[in-house]
Amino acid sequence: MKLTILGSGASTPKINNYTTSQILKIKNNYFLIDCGEGIQMQLRKLKINFSKISCIFISHLHGDHYFGLIGLISTFRLLGRVSDLNIYAPKGLQELINLHLKLSQSWLNYRIIFHALTSKSQKIIIDNSDLSVKTIPLNHRIYTNGFLFEEKFNERNIKKSKIKEYNFKIEDLKKLKKGQDVYLDDGTKIKNSAVVKNLKKSKKYAFCSDTAYNTNIIQLISSIECLYHESTFLESHSDLAKKTMHSTASEAAKIASAANVGKLILGHFSNRYKNQENFLKEAKIYFKNVFLANEGTIFDI
Amino acid sequence: MKLTILGSGASTPKINNYTTSQILKIKNNYFLIDCGEGIQMQLRKLKINFSKISCIFISHLHGDHYFGLIGLISTFRLLGRVSDLNIYAPKGLQELINLHLKLSQSWLNYRIIFHALTSKSQKIIIDNSDLSVKTIPLNHRIYTNGFLFEEKFNERNIKKSKIKEYNFKIEDLKKLKKGQDVYLDDGTKIKNSAVVKNLKKSKKYAFCSDTAYNTNIIQLISSIECLYHESTFLESHSDLAKKTMHSTASEAAKIASAANVGKLILGHFSNRYKNQENFLKEAKIYFKNVFLANEGTIFDI
Repeated sequence: MKLTILGSGASTPKINNYTTSQILKIKNNYFLIDCGEGIQMQLRKLKINFSKISCIFISHLHGDHYFGLIGLISTFRLLGRVSDLNIYAPKGLQELINLHLKLSQSWLNYRIIFHALTSKSQKIIIDNSDLSVKTIPLNHRIYTNGFLFEEKFNERNIKKSKIKEYNFKIEDLKKLKKGQDVYLDDGTKIKNSAVVKNLKKSKKYAFCSDTAYNTNIIQLISSIECLYHESTFLESHSDLAKKTMHSTASEAAKIASAANVGKLILGHFSNRYKNQENFLKEAKIYFKNVFLANEGTIFDI
Repeated sequence: MKLTILGSGASTPKINNYTTSQILKIKNNYFLIDCGEGIQMQLRKLKINFSKISCIFISHLHGDHYFGLIGLISTFRLLGRVSDLNIYAPKGLQELINLHLKLSQSWLNYRIIFHALTSKSQKIIIDNSDLSVKTIPLNHRIYTNGFLFEEKFNERNIKKSKIKEYNFKIEDLKKLKKGQDVYLDDGTKIKNSAVVKNLKKSKKYAFCSDTAYNTNIIQLISSIECLYHESTFLESHSDLAKKTMHSTASEAAKIASAANVGKLILGHFSNRYKNQENFLKEAKIYFKNVFLANEGTIFDI
């Protein structure tokens, strides 16, 4: 998986400071996670092909997480998109998109498949042999979900030495990749485990924005490779964090530590802070492997 | 009047190419004309004080003219706005703003006064002693208005030599400024015309975007100081201009020439053109005093 940060600001876009938006590439699938105002300009700047975006995930309906969506949807049409677009978002967004289209007497040449999220418990929203996506119910002022992305590795890689030794036929190679045993022409059974490498462990990325400090999510993100957790405030503004149902850098790091994740990315920084190095400093007290969601940064997961 | 170009692109915002938006300053009133996606970032870049914007005029409900509005409205709240905001726009926009606010469970600490435009003939929408604003019905794919802004100069300036000669009282000066005659202590009548300078001519700016070539507007903009007229295409794409109900640079210049305006500004350039110098070249065949609506350009009117 490859995660590209498009924006990490909170509340309102500024020059060189777009609001929350990320592109996650999983096995040639390009997923857009949240979509702040003007994000289509970031996609151009970072040379991300608009037509490759197949799914958009919207955490919640505060403007800094979705005001760029209607513009992006329009631009898709202008660019000649024909392939389906899946949108996973809280209920209500479809009505808004439809009203925009109605007022502008516009149409789309592609199909939007809306998946209205309403459940307050974790739901599997995508599950196939390549990947899965589950919601992570968060605790914010309005209905909000994080998302847990899993990249699956179901195909076994066969040891090169064994391919040479047994000179497997193509159909046998396919069976071995799927984990099955095969038989040689003379009837000898070749056990799968004897010729394949260990199955690559699936990898997981969790996106958690926006949320108050919420220990309920720890079990849902246990031991994952990478966690993005909002940290709108520093501890010095913990009163504001409580009031607005956001997290501090310390709280994000405590969650990362308790969940034993591999890496923590902090973002959704309040505009009141000029320098974000203090977020790193504060988080590192509780969790060492921590990074800032700087615009344009690419994280390999 | 001072006109600042925030964006002049058509259809979709790109890096350094925002869509149609302008700020017109008339006598300390800051009017925002159209509001493309991300325009709040341009306002910051050009150091325009958000709180000074008292009125927003939206020509029509195609996304490149209003997708930045909901974001700007939200940012006004975050910045602590309390003063009224007047929005002059086609009917329907209010419903959209209200739906956005409802879905995000947001509120505003200031009042939006919507002025829903529906008339297909010219209407006076603002008229006071300082200025007036009238609609200019345009001919586009959906209901569209241009806007005619007039800066009024009602106060006479009194000749310095006469002030010295007659030693007018303050109340007499006020009367003279308003165009009235006054009487000296000895009963002598002083005719207004004998002591005041000629009244400064009012100045007019017309914003006309988007529209097919439309000679009906010529009489509405006759002899004004400055005309902004869209020119989405060059003549080489006049078929596209007809089909999409836009104008070419030639057509914009012909309108400017027929209306005998002082200055023509071209904008709303299609993204297909890399170089906009050809718009100038083409327009100059029909009208000499022509300029491009380059981002950040300020026109004194």
